[in-house]
Amino acid sequence: MDNRAIGIFDSGLGGLTVVKEMTHILKEQKIIYFGDTARVPYGTKSKDTVVNYAKQDVAFLKDKSVKMIIAACGTVSSNLDLKTIEEFSIPFIGVVLPAVEAAISLTKTKKIGVLGTPSTIKSNKYEKEILKNLKDAKVKSVACPMFVPLVENGYIKKDDQVSNIIAKEYLKPFIKGEYDVIILGCTHFPILSDVIKNILPSNIRLINPGKEAAKYAKEMMKKQGILPSENPHVTHEFYSSDDVNNFINNANLFLKNDDLISSSIFKHYKI
Amino acid sequence: MDNRAIGIFDSGLGGLTVVKEMTHILKEQKIIYFGDTARVPYGTKSKDTVVNYAKQDVAFLKDKSVKMIIAACGTVSSNLDLKTIEEFSIPFIGVVLPAVEAAISLTKTKKIGVLGTPSTIKSNKYEKEILKNLKDAKVKSVACPMFVPLVENGYIKKDDQVSNIIAKEYLKPFIKGEYDVIILGCTHFPILSDVIKNILPSNIRLINPGKEAAKYAKEMMKKQGILPSENPHVTHEFYSSDDVNNFINNANLFLKNDDLISSSIFKHYKI
Repeated sequence: MDNRAIGIFDSGLGGLTVVKEMTHILKEQKIIYFGDTARVPYGTKSKDTVVNYAKQDVAFLKDKSVKMIIAACGTVSSNLDLKTIEEFSIPFIGVVLPAVEAAISLTKTKKIGVLGTPSTIKSNKYEKEILKNLKDAKVKSVACPMFVPLVENGYIKKDDQVSNIIAKEYLKPFIKGEYDVIILGCTHFPILSDVIKNILPSNIRLINPGKEAAKYAKEMMKKQGILPSENPHVTHEFYSSDDVNNFINNANLFLKNDDLISSSIFKHYKI
Repeated sequence: MDNRAIGIFDSGLGGLTVVKEMTHILKEQKIIYFGDTARVPYGTKSKDTVVNYAKQDVAFLKDKSVKMIIAACGTVSSNLDLKTIEEFSIPFIGVVLPAVEAAISLTKTKKIGVLGTPSTIKSNKYEKEILKNLKDAKVKSVACPMFVPLVENGYIKKDDQVSNIIAKEYLKPFIKGEYDVIILGCTHFPILSDVIKNILPSNIRLINPGKEAAKYAKEMMKKQGILPSENPHVTHEFYSSDDVNNFINNANLFLKNDDLISSSIFKHYKI
């Protein structure tokens, strides 16, 4: 048993999809979240910049004495190499491997689609990891640069005209249904699930990387014997590098849980 | 006469609209440009964060011994107060005043529209400056958070379906033509001029703040006796805080001048 918090970070709010899932499947686990809202987004930036930011984010969470860190960000998870992760010297989980494992277990056609930010798709990380574990898989990756601004500006309803036009363009390779599993490789993208499902054939399964990462983290804690003990009163802490009131105002788009927000602590941290 | 460079900065590439204009109206003037592409955009961030970044951007340019600095960014120009600008201790121009002067000289109805990033509109700076100089003016300000991602992802053609839907929503208050001058209060927005003109009545005049700031800077140099002398071989310098190759690849969207790009120096600067 280990009642220390786990640390979760993202470029901004997208990583809250991991928080949401974690509070469902392991509600006694205290979470310390960092959203780098002063430098958001990461997904349009270069590998060097993303890695540099990720190192600073991890250092902040390590200072908070967390027992494990989740990079709840597709862009960070795609751009970190093994050496950097080892240097963190702390149990560390990205969203790529959990999503890839889920995709491989679900595909029947062995054809898997990946949607991501430009930086994620450029890294080719999802494709490499899929092929490492399923050698005869066929992978089609598509950069979706407009999805993050669409989510952040509320163009998320199933029949939203703008989101549908843009998503139809990105999803063209998947319209035939040949790729039977699609990884939503950025923690913002599940917010657009209704739009995406509206366009794709109904046989296609969508993988939410945040959800998979939370389940994966719980399994890892179990294996390492660091699950928390029963604790009815967990107070989560959320830090943002830009204005914390903006953060609170927008958090519910991802958390959909007023109680969680009102019972948590929110603070600004200048990075 | 003063052959030192002028410094121009922006959150990213939008400020290149000022560079473009400056190279037209004063081609013997050397320019040192800084684009903070590792932290772009500024327009969705808080006042404190924007001011903090602007101070760092100015410090970088002052280190380069420039004779004058232009904040070629609507968000920075709207959020800096006079005290901060005085503390810079260097001739300093934002885009707000030049755009406001141009708008006031052109309006006949005394009704002026302002389009800007969320941070710019929240600051209310354009409106305050207009009313300071034209007391009975009526000002209508509209935040256009999707315009920057639309520009950066190339949705800029006159008849682009996505841009037209979004712009029609933002421009609703101006469809009647009552407001006869509209300030495009962010240096990205003039790239969408064709879309905006396509929607608005033809009597409406659009103000390009980058263009006005360049003219204003030239006038200020003339008044202060710091214009450059004739110089046929000026080499401009461009710095970006994220990957410089990405910066070069995207710069021509704003500069529309291959010769300028091939004859200039581009460097990375980690801020």
